[in-house]
Amino acid sequence: MIIPKKKLTAIKGIAFDFDGVFTDNLVYVMQNGDEAVACNRSDGMGIRMLLTAGVPLVIISTEENPIVTVRGAKLNLEVIQGVVDKLPRLVDWAVQNGLSLDQIAFVGNDVNDMQCLKSAGLGIAVADAYPIALDAADFVLTKKGGHGAVREIADLWLDANLEVAN
Amino acid sequence: MIIPKKKLTAIKGIAFDFDGVFTDNLVYVMQNGDEAVACNRSDGMGIRMLLTAGVPLVIISTEENPIVTVRGAKLNLEVIQGVVDKLPRLVDWAVQNGLSLDQIAFVGNDVNDMQCLKSAGLGIAVADAYPIALDAADFVLTKKGGHGAVREIADLWLDANLEVAN
Amino acid sequence: MIIPKKKLTAIKGIAFDFDGVFTDNLVYVMQNGDEAVACNRSDGMGIRMLLTAGVPLVIISTEENPIVTVRGAKLNLEVIQGVVDKLPRLVDWAVQNGLSLDQIAFVGNDVNDMQCLKSAGLGIAVADAYPIALDAADFVLTKKGGHGAVREIADLWLDANLEVAN
Amino acid sequence: MIIPKKKLTAIKGIAFDFDGVFTDNLVYVMQNGDEAVACNRSDGMGIRMLLTAGVPLVIISTEENPIVTVRGAKLNLEVIQGVVDKLPRLVDWAVQNGLSLDQIAFVGNDVNDMQCLKSAGLGIAVADAYPIALDAADFVLTKKGGHGAVREIADLWLDANLEVAN
Repeated sequence: MIIPKKKLTAIKGIAFDFDGVFTDNLVYVMQNGDEAVACNRSDGMGIRMLLTAGVPLVIISTEENPIVTVRGAKLNLEVIQGVVDKLPRLVDWAVQNGLSLDQIAFVGNDVNDMQCLKSAGLGIAVADAYPIALDAADFVLTKKGGHGAVREIADLWLDANLEVAN
Repeated sequence: MIIPKKKLTAIKGIAFDFDGVFTDNLVYVMQNGDEAVACNRSDGMGIRMLLTAGVPLVIISTEENPIVTVRGAKLNLEVIQGVVDKLPRLVDWAVQNGLSLDQIAFVGNDVNDMQCLKSAGLGIAVADAYPIALDAADFVLTKKGGHGAVREIADLWLDANLEVAN
Repeated sequence: MIIPKKKLTAIKGIAFDFDGVFTDNLVYVMQNGDEAVACNRSDGMGIRMLLTAGVPLVIISTEENPIVTVRGAKLNLEVIQGVVDKLPRLVDWAVQNGLSLDQIAFVGNDVNDMQCLKSAGLGIAVADAYPIALDAADFVLTKKGGHGAVREIADLWLDANLEVAN
Repeated sequence: MIIPKKKLTAIKGIAFDFDGVFTDNLVYVMQNGDEAVACNRSDGMGIRMLLTAGVPLVIISTEENPIVTVRGAKLNLEVIQGVVDKLPRLVDWAVQNGLSLDQIAFVGNDVNDMQCLKSAGLGIAVADAYPIALDAADFVLTKKGGHGAVREIADLWLDANLEVAN
């Protein structure tokens, strides 16, 4: 599966689910109830490259969790969390950035991402997304969540848009 | 291996072992003796879907461990732990929920789950269960413990029972 | 590769390396320098079964690390750690238990286990041991360190010795 | 791919990237923003063997992170971190050790290692390095980052140089 370059150059902002996209969907549970997740340094580098290129980015997460807050803060990523219904929040975020939904890519992995995957200009599922998310997406990454999926998107977007710039 | 729909629609409650079912059977050991385990967000979503459908659920664990307590609390799951002999506790739990053992599915992975796997209406082993548990089970999941096994059960049960409802 | 039953019934005590045998040889490093490792619940069950059968067990570890202490304490396992030269300590431990070196199995994974693997009555390497340990061992397990290697030894020993008992 | 022995005997010092070389590039993120990484005991053993052989070693890392400090301290490894542009720091380190860049091996995995991989006497990429690092390297290890890559380098260097010494 290949994303047409036309599609990628039309994308002006990217919204990400957190668990299962920035992570492998695992949550490390401590005795006191604290949680931890495993993120990927290569994704961090992808985010830095996209931000340097001036692309508006956001995490929209169902979980209300301090981990998302601290990871977002480290990567200079805007975070919207504790969201039951993601699509209206995605629409709001697009408007706030002066973009239409057609200009947004959304990256997800599970049933609660389905609506956004269908409605965004480009719905992207990680390689190990649930069937319902794979079906809803326009495009499936070669990388699994937590294993470079975000970096793959960064590389794809930058390749398509820098080529156009040159 | 396929579970007959008849079998799944007869199931009214589900009991789970914890280690090796909600986790990959690993335990992270800290210097101070604290432990942590890796659970899966997709299993959490499966549990939410089953609870929404009104299915009584319980964790029955050999380990007496605060991790099981906190994870159970987060998922709104009843927890029975520090159990040497699981079958009598499973029977008690069935009775308390007005169910017979035939109406209970039990999910396990090792020798201490053998009796429950044999006695429950539906004995389910995770894909990476020990041979003794695989032999005792009526059904083996495609997913390994900690890698979506609980979600797979949720999807199977909901598919069979919603179909009947419609 | 199969261990002759004769060999396993001659074994009266088992000594284990820790890192790479009870773990996958990874060490989780925290910001404050604290460490954690991933152990396996199934290994814990194997240890309980061997102790119930009355087999003397010990961990002999190069690392001087509170993790080994706490894990040994949880499993009721004797621990000898901070050991540069393992063989003399193995000999001492055998003597203290009224056993000859021929009656001891030693389980290891790396170059610092080589002498013990060669000198013990039965040298056992985990499936993912370093070549130098694989060469020194009499027997290679099918399981990797941290993924049930200790449980595999327990099952093998108990199968061979219970069969003889029956 | 084989490194000519001539090449390895010309190498007198080794510089390592940290994330993705000593680790699998994952970062465990805690609720309070603390981070952890997974290192490998076998790499620790490789570092000890190289230091015993008197080879100057250094970690040069983009991340400014206490984890690198504590891991370096444990392994008696010099650490240079928070480095945006690695090549000038590599050159400085070579000079301080009385070595030319031709006598240095550099081990990396990603785009920020590219210049060092090209400029060092021997550029080494881990097995799971990004394509841009694989292309820049003279040699690709069989081991992935965090899974024995550093130990593999130690074994290669020691084999080549001890053979020459004998």
